[in-house]
Amino acid sequence: MYYLGIDLGGSNIAVGLFDDAGKKVLSKSTKTLHDRTFEEIVSDMAQLCQKIIVETKISIDEIKSIGIGTPGACDCEKGILLYACTFSFTNVNFREELQKYIDLPVYIENDANCAVLAEYFVGAAKGISDAVMITIGTGIGGGVIVDGKIMTGFNGIAAELGHFVIVKGGIKCGCGRAGCFESYASATAIIRMTKEFIESNPATGLLTYCDGDINNVSGKTIFDAAKLGDKDGEKLVEIYEDYLAEGIASLINIFQPEVFLVGGGVSKEGEYLLVPVRKIVSERTYMAKSDLIAQTRLVKAEMGNDAGMLGAAMLGKEFSRDA
Amino acid sequence: MYYLGIDLGGSNIAVGLFDDAGKKVLSKSTKTLHDRTFEEIVSDMAQLCQKIIVETKISIDEIKSIGIGTPGACDCEKGILLYACTFSFTNVNFREELQKYIDLPVYIENDANCAVLAEYFVGAAKGISDAVMITIGTGIGGGVIVDGKIMTGFNGIAAELGHFVIVKGGIKCGCGRAGCFESYASATAIIRMTKEFIESNPATGLLTYCDGDINNVSGKTIFDAAKLGDKDGEKLVEIYEDYLAEGIASLINIFQPEVFLVGGGVSKEGEYLLVPVRKIVSERTYMAKSDLIAQTRLVKAEMGNDAGMLGAAMLGKEFSRDA
Repeated sequence: MYYLGIDLGGSNIAVGLFDDAGKKVLSKSTKTLHDRTFEEIVSDMAQLCQKIIVETKISIDEIKSIGIGTPGACDCEKGILLYACTFSFTNVNFREELQKYIDLPVYIENDANCAVLAEYFVGAAKGISDAVMITIGTGIGGGVIVDGKIMTGFNGIAAELGHFVIVKGGIKCGCGRAGCFESYASATAIIRMTKEFIESNPATGLLTYCDGDINNVSGKTIFDAAKLGDKDGEKLVEIYEDYLAEGIASLINIFQPEVFLVGGGVSKEGEYLLVPVRKIVSERTYMAKSDLIAQTRLVKAEMGNDAGMLGAAMLGKEFSRDA
Repeated sequence: MYYLGIDLGGSNIAVGLFDDAGKKVLSKSTKTLHDRTFEEIVSDMAQLCQKIIVETKISIDEIKSIGIGTPGACDCEKGILLYACTFSFTNVNFREELQKYIDLPVYIENDANCAVLAEYFVGAAKGISDAVMITIGTGIGGGVIVDGKIMTGFNGIAAELGHFVIVKGGIKCGCGRAGCFESYASATAIIRMTKEFIESNPATGLLTYCDGDINNVSGKTIFDAAKLGDKDGEKLVEIYEDYLAEGIASLINIFQPEVFLVGGGVSKEGEYLLVPVRKIVSERTYMAKSDLIAQTRLVKAEMGNDAGMLGAAMLGKEFSRDA
């Protein structure tokens, strides 16, 4: 059987057809133009699905389902997107609207949950019943697998793993709280920290790593500098690792997953980042010193750019298990 | 059918027989004397079970199982207590040892998990598939129900809900970290905060509420004072509520349970504590302002002193569902 997966992002709608093993057959995308109406967006989704069906010559009988990964909060049972700050519409039924075009089961789920699902069916958490994933980008997204299933919460918005406070009264977060994990461990946080350091230390060599212009500072700047032995870069990387490890250790104490996955842009630093973070985490997790207790493995997420589509496609596998 | 439940505490071993609805038929207890050997403790457990069976005249055929709630980390599948700081023995098989005396299925689970299970089968979370419970006493214990099942983690020690950091670099916690939720929101934390306040403000009226002796300060002192209009008491209660709400809001963002239960000694303050905490929590949780998203209910745990035994007894219901 085959599975269609739709990654509905703020910029692009990407649709992919995958086989049972999660191998991509064909994908297509178009601009989201997120100010459009709900009906216009679903019409484009349907067209991309139909084009893929036509081009691959795979019969619709061989396709099990269509899954949609979206930002925001979903009522997965009903196929409804309740709310996403990306779109102007709220409380819309993607299942009913998409089924006007294509007669297949339609599933919807939050995109961060889809990301961990892709890892669970195909990637670094394959076959592992308890897994936690954070995606470190502009913000920090979260997805959790408990006992082999996505943890959605009773209202569909669980696993906001960027929004627990690690520094009470700390830096103001986009969510309205002060001191969230996201405010200290996202790529945005790295950029803020780097810029603040440069502003207070104008003579720093860090500027060399962003073409002498503070506006070019990225989430990579301190890592690029540290890898070439820049002392300021090394210092800032250490501070960042400490914050990241603090949040990860707390999440491990809460969930005790078999694997803890780190994805998103910052995870591209790979073992350079993860080796020291593992060390700090092991000093801060519960019973980490006991040989009687199995310990969580902290690893880089494996799925790349297709994770969103693939995870959405795998919703068909996830939800058909109950049926 | 009936269920035997054993609450293995640091001070007492309490054994109760419960019916299908969770109603207690009879209970008995003895001192744990926790320095004893594993075999001696299990022998006492077995004797208490047998006495209950004899006195109630309920046939062993009518008893479904024996459940054990224990401090520490369990391998529930194998019936093993891996480690608990309360006892000198580690890695012991309660199931095999207890079955030498009584031929019934034996289940074992962490005591905080048993507490939430009691609420799930009989108490404030009855029939609710997603529930989180914190027990506020000397420390903060945690138990989580996800999709109708206890969340144990892959290694049996998940839901250490007292041990996520809310004040990075803050007060040293018993677990070795600095700034854990437990260090700010347990009864021990209230006592520390109260004593520190009295030491810095010797003229405070708070001393009146502990017979003029700082050594009599308890987790109740500031609440007793505040309820009678003592300004210092009111101020400290507000500070405490703020810390408690900070941790609860984070846990709600992570789990989005339908109910969040507060149990343990401090929860006896009831609505006096929970009304202001609910208000702060609602200002700090994700999408709490949206009418499209159902919100977590924050309530007092209902089960009293028998919760440990009852929750342990209900392990027979919990685990027989899979069979």
